[in-house]
Amino acid sequence: MIIVMGVPGAGKTTVLQGLKENVRVINYGTLMFDIAKERYGVSNRDEIRKLSVEKQRTVQKEVAETLSHEKGMVVLDTHCSVKTPKGYLPGLPFDLLAKLDVDALVLVTAKPEDIFRRRENDPTRIRKETLEELKEHDAINKALLAVYAAHRGCPAKIIYNMEGESEKASAELQKIIRD
Amino acid sequence: MIIVMGVPGAGKTTVLQGLKENVRVINYGTLMFDIAKERYGVSNRDEIRKLSVEKQRTVQKEVAETLSHEKGMVVLDTHCSVKTPKGYLPGLPFDLLAKLDVDALVLVTAKPEDIFRRRENDPTRIRKETLEELKEHDAINKALLAVYAAHRGCPAKIIYNMEGESEKASAELQKIIRD
Amino acid sequence: MIIVMGVPGAGKTTVLQGLKENVRVINYGTLMFDIAKERYGVSNRDEIRKLSVEKQRTVQKEVAETLSHEKGMVVLDTHCSVKTPKGYLPGLPFDLLAKLDVDALVLVTAKPEDIFRRRENDPTRIRKETLEELKEHDAINKALLAVYAAHRGCPAKIIYNMEGESEKASAELQKIIRD
Repeated sequence: MIIVMGVPGAGKTTVLQGLKENVRVINYGTLMFDIAKERYGVSNRDEIRKLSVEKQRTVQKEVAETLSHEKGMVVLDTHCSVKTPKGYLPGLPFDLLAKLDVDALVLVTAKPEDIFRRRENDPTRIRKETLEELKEHDAINKALLAVYAAHRGCPAKIIYNMEGESEKASAELQKIIRD
Repeated sequence: MIIVMGVPGAGKTTVLQGLKENVRVINYGTLMFDIAKERYGVSNRDEIRKLSVEKQRTVQKEVAETLSHEKGMVVLDTHCSVKTPKGYLPGLPFDLLAKLDVDALVLVTAKPEDIFRRRENDPTRIRKETLEELKEHDAINKALLAVYAAHRGCPAKIIYNMEGESEKASAELQKIIRD
Repeated sequence: MIIVMGVPGAGKTTVLQGLKENVRVINYGTLMFDIAKERYGVSNRDEIRKLSVEKQRTVQKEVAETLSHEKGMVVLDTHCSVKTPKGYLPGLPFDLLAKLDVDALVLVTAKPEDIFRRRENDPTRIRKETLEELKEHDAINKALLAVYAAHRGCPAKIIYNMEGESEKASAELQKIIRD
């Protein structure tokens, strides 16, 4: 399994769509919601966080189990960290990470200025980060990437999705998946 | 429990004093000393580090136990890292972190230039860090913050205590405590 | 045990050679190879990574055991991270770190510009990192240093091996070993 992470505006989705290899991409959030819905009848993602800690752990465990039964190479699409009012919430806390069999970790990022501009041009996004906040978020994500890699003993790659060069970024990701 | 950390000069104490909520603030170092004094008769903080590793672990365990018996919201005031002659000593090593029930982690910091100036104006401080050293220390603290958050699976916030705006920083902290 | 790490060109070897103290320096890679050779007949370092995960774990375990039997102060010379085609591979993953008894962690580094120039002047080195890549690698190493220190609860020091001042860097390292 390869875990691909990136903040909104980094272009993670575009980079994943540019993959030429026939690889199964699983969205962590979607998988978690599907399981929480079936088990505990939650009707939207926000309700997952309102479940008891024990129930959340059960969901997390089932997510990990589902992933472990996947055959062939899987790309897990998730967040390196989520910005919440209480701070940056790590996407791969130790107790989750311990249950995953990871071959490589990838952080898709871009120049903060480019991410900022891409977000400006996105009419759907409500809350905007300032450029300074974005730089801080990017730095935290890079530190978290190092943490996750040390935990799993697997390599960690930072792929820069430069303006107008998403194909190059896809090719870089493809190389990691193929090898 | 919310853990609040920050280097000397960042203004952690001022920010904590500015809290309007009636919240119990426990200083980790003081609590540790009180326990080590009662158990092993140490007479000052430096002696704690001279205890055998086993005794230090006992003290640490009792600190964690004491904290776990606290009712209501507790703010634990501690160091993200302590600068020692052998390097930066993490304030929340994994074996301690594993014993704590953490809701959120907060690093109070400021522009390195501001911290530097505040220290210059503080006649009590003996050893001064250069601006370069301070920047390194700040970067290590931010990386450690990410590590601690990934370990506990809790959010991590960086609060900037800007010059003359400690009330704003206190309000930010208060929001985290209240929610 | 003190663990000393650093990227090629940082001058780790020079700094270690400049130690005046009579200290035993063990190269992690060499020790690992010796054990893998004896146990599984590998004929070069690349073959270690081709062993089954289980065999690699056995080798790692024996490396840790060998190190634990060392008497007196030992300096373990290893990589903070190795740059591979799949990304930065941490030199001290958690499962290895958990087996080591570490007193202090040291990262020998230098100004990226200096490292870059030193590598330029080294005719033996094949793959070159650009200055930007080098800065990224250095940042990842510093984040990993913080991770390792938090894991072991030991201090972490960054020693700058400035151009023409390797003796000063050796003296700094010596102080950590002696105390």
